[in-house]
Amino acid sequence: MDAIFQRKSYRGAYLPDPVPRADLTTLLEAGLSAPSGCNKQTTSLIAVDDPALLREIFSIMDLPDCKSAPAVICVLTKHIAAYRDGWGKERCYSVQDYAAAIENILLEAVQLGYQSCWIEGHVTDADEQGKRIAEMLAVPDYYELVAVLPIGKAAEPLQSVQKRPFSERAWFNRFGQE
Amino acid sequence: MDAIFQRKSYRGAYLPDPVPRADLTTLLEAGLSAPSGCNKQTTSLIAVDDPALLREIFSIMDLPDCKSAPAVICVLTKHIAAYRDGWGKERCYSVQDYAAAIENILLEAVQLGYQSCWIEGHVTDADEQGKRIAEMLAVPDYYELVAVLPIGKAAEPLQSVQKRPFSERAWFNRFGQE
Repeated sequence: MDAIFQRKSYRGAYLPDPVPRADLTTLLEAGLSAPSGCNKQTTSLIAVDDPALLREIFSIMDLPDCKSAPAVICVLTKHIAAYRDGWGKERCYSVQDYAAAIENILLEAVQLGYQSCWIEGHVTDADEQGKRIAEMLAVPDYYELVAVLPIGKAAEPLQSVQKRPFSERAWFNRFGQE
Repeated sequence: MDAIFQRKSYRGAYLPDPVPRADLTTLLEAGLSAPSGCNKQTTSLIAVDDPALLREIFSIMDLPDCKSAPAVICVLTKHIAAYRDGWGKERCYSVQDYAAAIENILLEAVQLGYQSCWIEGHVTDADEQGKRIAEMLAVPDYYELVAVLPIGKAAEPLQSVQKRPFSERAWFNRFGQE
């Protein structure tokens, strides 16, 4: 599981090499293999490798760095309840479901030699980029397009973010205990 | 990345073998290696392997299957905003952050020969099991304990859930297109 420790959010340019359909299929399968609350399988995925569609997506998203990616995976979710709890409240785990699916895809991408980045904020902000991309891909209204993951080989060095030390975020048997 | 495809939610009994601290540390590190929105690192973790604490946790949770687990990882989150979007709305990605961390832990567990299960619904339902476990572990109020992951070796065969076929959940270039 080196992929867990090697994965980084890549925001540089991509090489133009196309991503073979077999690899895209493996990435989609990795995403669908994630668990989901009460097995509701609320996450669906669309891999886009058509150059004209990619150009349209990147013109909507206006993110200079990722627009050279030769493929993207669009993440769709259905916000449906997993169950009703004992107090009558509907519990929905669709966010957890798609987040686990995205993490699987990011890890499998590393494993296959690709880079990616979890792009969600820009997609679901109030200017509704996600909605416009969903319309372009003929996604029905009962799905929300919540994230776009560029996929490709890195053309630039990877950059690390600084994380707080282990002892400030993880403990044994009691909060704060090393 | 066989772990992605081998991982299953395990709800059987566990062998009594303790989980070495080195393995628990690797699992915690895997969780902390997950990405987080704007690198806010909203997720924290507590591994519990003290038998008295485990008994108390399982008496609160009342889940017969997992109460034989020799360790658990408790998942904590801080619901803080990652950024304020261009329309003044605060965007918080703490759910996505902890879901990605959990998926990393579940995959690393498979890799190390353990089984686990993402237990969240029972923990955050209105009877506040998570809050009671958090108090027991001296977790400050500004964290929410959202999930408990039992960790141990399986004593029973793994069971698979049925998932919908690929073609009903993943497509190329357009919704529904194979």
